Amino acid sequence: MEPFSPSAAFALLDRLRRQRPLVQNITNFVTMTVSANVLLAAGASPAMVHAREEVEDFAAIASSLVVNIGTLSPAWIDSMKLAATTCRGLGKPWVLDPVGVGATRFRTRVSVELQALGPSAIRANASEVMALAGAASVVRGVDSTAASHAAVEAAVSLARAGGCTVAVTGETDYVTDGHRLVAVEGGHPLMPLSTGLGCALSALVAAFLAVAPPFEATVAAIAVYAAAGRMAGARLSGPGHLPAGLCDALHCMDEAALGGNCTISEVRT
Amino acid sequence: MEPFSPSAAFALLDRLRRQRPLVQNITNFVTMTVSANVLLAAGASPAMVHAREEVEDFAAIASSLVVNIGTLSPAWIDSMKLAATTCRGLGKPWVLDPVGVGATRFRTRVSVELQALGPSAIRANASEVMALAGAASVVRGVDSTAASHAAVEAAVSLARAGGCTVAVTGETDYVTDGHRLVAVEGGHPLMPLSTGLGCALSALVAAFLAVAPPFEATVAAIAVYAAAGRMAGARLSGPGHLPAGLCDALHCMDEAALGGNCTISEVRT
Amino acid sequence: MEPFSPSAAFALLDRLRRQRPLVQNITNFVTMTVSANVLLAAGASPAMVHAREEVEDFAAIASSLVVNIGTLSPAWIDSMKLAATTCRGLGKPWVLDPVGVGATRFRTRVSVELQALGPSAIRANASEVMALAGAASVVRGVDSTAASHAAVEAAVSLARAGGCTVAVTGETDYVTDGHRLVAVEGGHPLMPLSTGLGCALSALVAAFLAVAPPFEATVAAIAVYAAAGRMAGARLSGPGHLPAGLCDALHCMDEAALGGNCTISEVRT
Repeated sequence: MEPFSPSAAFALLDRLRRQRPLVQNITNFVTMTVSANVLLAAGASPAMVHAREEVEDFAAIASSLVVNIGTLSPAWIDSMKLAATTCRGLGKPWVLDPVGVGATRFRTRVSVELQALGPSAIRANASEVMALAGAASVVRGVDSTAASHAAVEAAVSLARAGGCTVAVTGETDYVTDGHRLVAVEGGHPLMPLSTGLGCALSALVAAFLAVAPPFEATVAAIAVYAAAGRMAGARLSGPGHLPAGLCDALHCMDEAALGGNCTISEVRT
Repeated sequence: MEPFSPSAAFALLDRLRRQRPLVQNITNFVTMTVSANVLLAAGASPAMVHAREEVEDFAAIASSLVVNIGTLSPAWIDSMKLAATTCRGLGKPWVLDPVGVGATRFRTRVSVELQALGPSAIRANASEVMALAGAASVVRGVDSTAASHAAVEAAVSLARAGGCTVAVTGETDYVTDGHRLVAVEGGHPLMPLSTGLGCALSALVAAFLAVAPPFEATVAAIAVYAAAGRMAGARLSGPGHLPAGLCDALHCMDEAALGGNCTISEVRT
Repeated sequence: MEPFSPSAAFALLDRLRRQRPLVQNITNFVTMTVSANVLLAAGASPAMVHAREEVEDFAAIASSLVVNIGTLSPAWIDSMKLAATTCRGLGKPWVLDPVGVGATRFRTRVSVELQALGPSAIRANASEVMALAGAASVVRGVDSTAASHAAVEAAVSLARAGGCTVAVTGETDYVTDGHRLVAVEGGHPLMPLSTGLGCALSALVAAFLAVAPPFEATVAAIAVYAAAGRMAGARLSGPGHLPAGLCDALHCMDEAALGGNCTISEVRT
């Protein structure tokens, strides 16, 4: 079995379904519901826990954490940092989703501070990866204005600087640990028209991180999601039913469906 | 007509649809939307109002209240307590949903404090009921690790201690007021895979409490929901469309459909 | 082409799709998701940004703003006011959705304060428009108890006093700038049974405000939404799939569908 193949990704999905990791989410108000539903459909157990008073207790029982700054406010930043630091201290993986980094100075500052706490993986769109890497980028709101391949160089440099895995998602998804680079094809053009599907993917990356090393876990999460998105989108003429269809596809995903709906290829860096 | 039968439950649903009670929700961010939609589909009028500045004014016009600690934070605890106390002072019923009690010390403390304020009914899963009752239980995140029948003894003791109705939901649902015990069968295995369906049920219990005494109201809410869940789940191969299907089933529910999709039986205690 | 016709509304939708305005939302927890999805489906780019620390930065890059007080709390009021003031200073349009004004003194006070900051448009139900206009009205929770035509006089007076456009939505929708009055027919009886569709419409009004003057923009947004609601509702037997169906209808809307599913008529005032 190839190290980065749909079959390898399916093996990790199978492991996730058996282990049913408890994933702590400190995420935004818009996408909490779809994130929870994606985690449940994939076989994980989500919990949205953000009060400073309990993040340490919760980190002790969680398998992994996702921190997403989509609807950031000062009261939550302390909790995000405490949760990230606690996870790191316990040797548990965590994912950073720096939504809209670069759009405001506040987001950029907080994203840089969180990134300095050592996430196991970062999942973002091209504009965000370039902004976080300090590369020139015009960020416009929370939707990406750059194609994902344009951010590959920034992703590699971000991964090297932070010693982490970076995923840039877009029409083609790229995953790098600073040395290896994998491209994943799949998904559907309707996906950017349904809110929070990127955020939910970051949560799914956290679930996979609970059952495998960061690079392999991230590639698998992204491949599984790309396949589910393609399967769901293919049946639809609009974005309305996409979250539900994506969850159904995740719930029913088998090895053949995964292999038939995404491709994973190593890119020479 | 049997006191606890689908026909009796339907009579209360019919009353709810005619009275259209205004239900105040102080609930979590993840499940506000599905809770509001379930209440609307059943015939109630939901309002999500949690600011300390207005909970007293709002309690005066609301018919009932649900307090759900899913995404707890300190600022909300004051509002939860003030709303519960105000409702009690006005003789209006309120429901406690102690999400994740036992998972962290923070949740346990707040749940115990809220329970001491005298909810008319408590709706929780088996792990939570056992944790709140002080029974030995390992709570893991917000999903239950115990079967609902294992929590029946804890539910009875919790109901007796608090003078309230306690519902333990799971594969079989149990409702007790500390003396009587009713089991409800229905629902669908996909239900735990869609986030917030337990929370939405707690909101529905609050709606029924506005039109009937606590024990009868809780049994009816749970029976109606179990039937709607079974009807919705039967048509689906994954959890994605379950919330929408559940709302449709609630909206269209008639006496025959209710009778055909749940069973209610008194259990000797 | 008539100034207020489905064809004129479609021309603005077409402009919106080409310009893809970035709409800042300071809105409630219940309806953030459906608001974002409606904006995406219509062709706009939503961002839910409410931290005081970044609302000014964000207003500088946004095309328009919607302020919705559905789940109001003190910490957000400052951000709402700062964002509204900033937009006004930059000559950018903003929409006020005074959810539940009149239901509590807190909501009434904050709504009046926000209205004094000069929204370009106000979108509300009949009870809310009458409460905000100071007319006698019994507001019951957040659902309207009055028919929309009963609020027309209040809407006209509110529009004149504030120099803004006011939309009263209900079975028939009315839009006025204090001088002209347009009635829009469309929609579907299931719409009030799905949470947040009014809130999402306010967000859509903000999107149209980015591409046309307030009165024309508001009429167009309401007509497009009324047509999409009618198209979606016609295929359904319950409210569960209505948000998804509405998004699909918005995404696929063409001139013929718009013309066939709403009527726009000027009313002599």
